[in-house]
Amino acid sequence: MNFLIQNLGQGLQQLEQLAGDPLWGYFQAVAGPDQQISPRELQQCLTSSGIAGTYQPFSLNTCYIMIAMLDRDRSGQMGFNEFKELWAALNQWKTTFMNFDRDRSGTIEGHELHQAVTSFGYNLSPNALNVLLGRYGENGRVKFDDFVALCVRLRALTAQFQQRDTARNGHATFQYDDFIQVTMSL
Amino acid sequence: MNFLIQNLGQGLQQLEQLAGDPLWGYFQAVAGPDQQISPRELQQCLTSSGIAGTYQPFSLNTCYIMIAMLDRDRSGQMGFNEFKELWAALNQWKTTFMNFDRDRSGTIEGHELHQAVTSFGYNLSPNALNVLLGRYGENGRVKFDDFVALCVRLRALTAQFQQRDTARNGHATFQYDDFIQVTMSL
Repeated sequence: MNFLIQNLGQGLQQLEQLAGDPLWGYFQAVAGPDQQISPRELQQCLTSSGIAGTYQPFSLNTCYIMIAMLDRDRSGQMGFNEFKELWAALNQWKTTFMNFDRDRSGTIEGHELHQAVTSFGYNLSPNALNVLLGRYGENGRVKFDDFVALCVRLRALTAQFQQRDTARNGHATFQYDDFIQVTMSL
Repeated sequence: MNFLIQNLGQGLQQLEQLAGDPLWGYFQAVAGPDQQISPRELQQCLTSSGIAGTYQPFSLNTCYIMIAMLDRDRSGQMGFNEFKELWAALNQWKTTFMNFDRDRSGTIEGHELHQAVTSFGYNLSPNALNVLLGRYGENGRVKFDDFVALCVRLRALTAQFQQRDTARNGHATFQYDDFIQVTMSL
């Protein structure tokens, strides 16, 4: 009985915390009874939250990889804890992007992309930085949605690499099937 | 003098061959004087060629990775030889897709995706095949554009892996910067 009351108390406390959390409202509005959201639902959720501000809403493609970045059980869905983790990352990326996009054109320049990526702590060669700009830029400029897609993939691929770089010497060995799973999920 | 005439002759022969090549027409219509096409020009070019048939035209995202797949000099552009190589691959993928999409719904099912990928010679685990379906499918079905994007990336990533699998034992070691260049360019 004491145990039940204690559990009930904890449950109520959690509910109160959630009720005061505006993120819970955005999440709850699209999550079904399974408390998981799909890429399309994430897109809806992020659009209604207004996190993109005056920038274009996130594309479905970017929402797919946002889910994949945190999808530890490879369900293709996102729970509330992952959603909160994504939210924190998105805010960091948005703040950085807006710092460079002072005229609110919705794009940043190539050298600003390089500075942004370096400011996140990635140590990449000029060649690698140019690959990022080539893939995510258009005419040398990068849009907010593409910038976020780049950040999502760079973060997730780096984490996957580090897991396999067991000697921490900047080299990782992949088995073919594992390589395809890691790289094609993003 | 003989040398000049011979060169001129060869040049004319090449021009005649090109003039008779319908692909050259599609390519030439969008390529500027540098004889290279950008992702947007490739999209235009493929749309006007009608290769997607009754399927939706290729998205800009798919056109980006089509170029990256064959972009050996990492220029972000495509020359005529690469365009012909892409064309051959596209025809193989389209034929395979249409074989499964008998009712011309524009989509194939998950198990058909697995069969298609296996028929191309890739030896992937059920887990890896599910990753592909999760990333490129929606409600268990895969659209033609997404199928082609999947095929492009799978082909390019496999080729990059094999280049580094020097012992041909299904394991490849990547240096971090190289890993990011390979995976983020696609």
